[in-house]
Amino acid sequence: MKVIIMHENFMLEAIKEAEKAFAIDEVPIGCVIVYHNKIIARAHNLRESKQSAIAHAEILAIEKACNIIGSWRLEDCTLYVTLEPCPMCSGAIIQSRMKTVVFGAYDPKGGCIESCMKMYETPGFNHYPETIGGILEEECGALLKQFFRQKRKQKKANTSPK
Amino acid sequence: MKVIIMHENFMLEAIKEAEKAFAIDEVPIGCVIVYHNKIIARAHNLRESKQSAIAHAEILAIEKACNIIGSWRLEDCTLYVTLEPCPMCSGAIIQSRMKTVVFGAYDPKGGCIESCMKMYETPGFNHYPETIGGILEEECGALLKQFFRQKRKQKKANTSPK
Repeated sequence: MKVIIMHENFMLEAIKEAEKAFAIDEVPIGCVIVYHNKIIARAHNLRESKQSAIAHAEILAIEKACNIIGSWRLEDCTLYVTLEPCPMCSGAIIQSRMKTVVFGAYDPKGGCIESCMKMYETPGFNHYPETIGGILEEECGALLKQFFRQKRKQKKANTSPK
Repeated sequence: MKVIIMHENFMLEAIKEAEKAFAIDEVPIGCVIVYHNKIIARAHNLRESKQSAIAHAEILAIEKACNIIGSWRLEDCTLYVTLEPCPMCSGAIIQSRMKTVVFGAYDPKGGCIESCMKMYETPGFNHYPETIGGILEEECGALLKQFFRQKRKQKKANTSPK
């Protein structure tokens, strides 16, 4: 029970990051990385702002955490992210030797931990993180649904005859 | 035949990048990205130098190419890399909507195009690049073998009794 509350508290911080993305018209995905019970890196999706294919929340947070720790090995860290990681980010979690990854909403359109593929059940890699899915799933998913609903409305308004 | 020579020429440029990595004691992997028959980005593995888990040749090259093109979409680009991409880099290729990926040596210890997994045969993603493997395979692999042979020798020299 205590562990679940801890996970929820850190996920709430990841949601705050996702809200920052929402506010600047980015797909609302947020991430924090925790080391010895303390957040050492925070980031949100910046793909459009940076016009960079790799500027996902997880990649930006891993880059910051490596900087803070002074090592590419994040062996004692836990990554919290509001959406199930895509193939690139699931792979970056392997590359950083992340101990644990905790995600909120499941992503049937690209999630690589449970949904599209179970990357961490593929033999042959040199690291396999522990995973926990569905922490504050509803809250994380609601933010994304709200974003895409708004986008569809904007698109409709822009294409409807005047 | 003409196409193969073109691929080999660009792979030779990726090998030059890999050699730069070798010279600074990084695992020798190099990458170039080509747009309209011209190299727009070059990079080599800098994981140890930067102490960053994401500083693989492909990620660094994709970041540069996005900067040059001014877009996260690299739809008309081809990525050349000396070693079959890992899960992170194979995923980054999807995320950047890269048209084609050409690699040199196959990687049984982590390659995600053919060896450990066939990522691009997994249904559900929003993009699938064309792939060509084994271009200058021997030359690309020889550089890696030489690097690890040297590493083992150094390790042996450091641990042997004086």
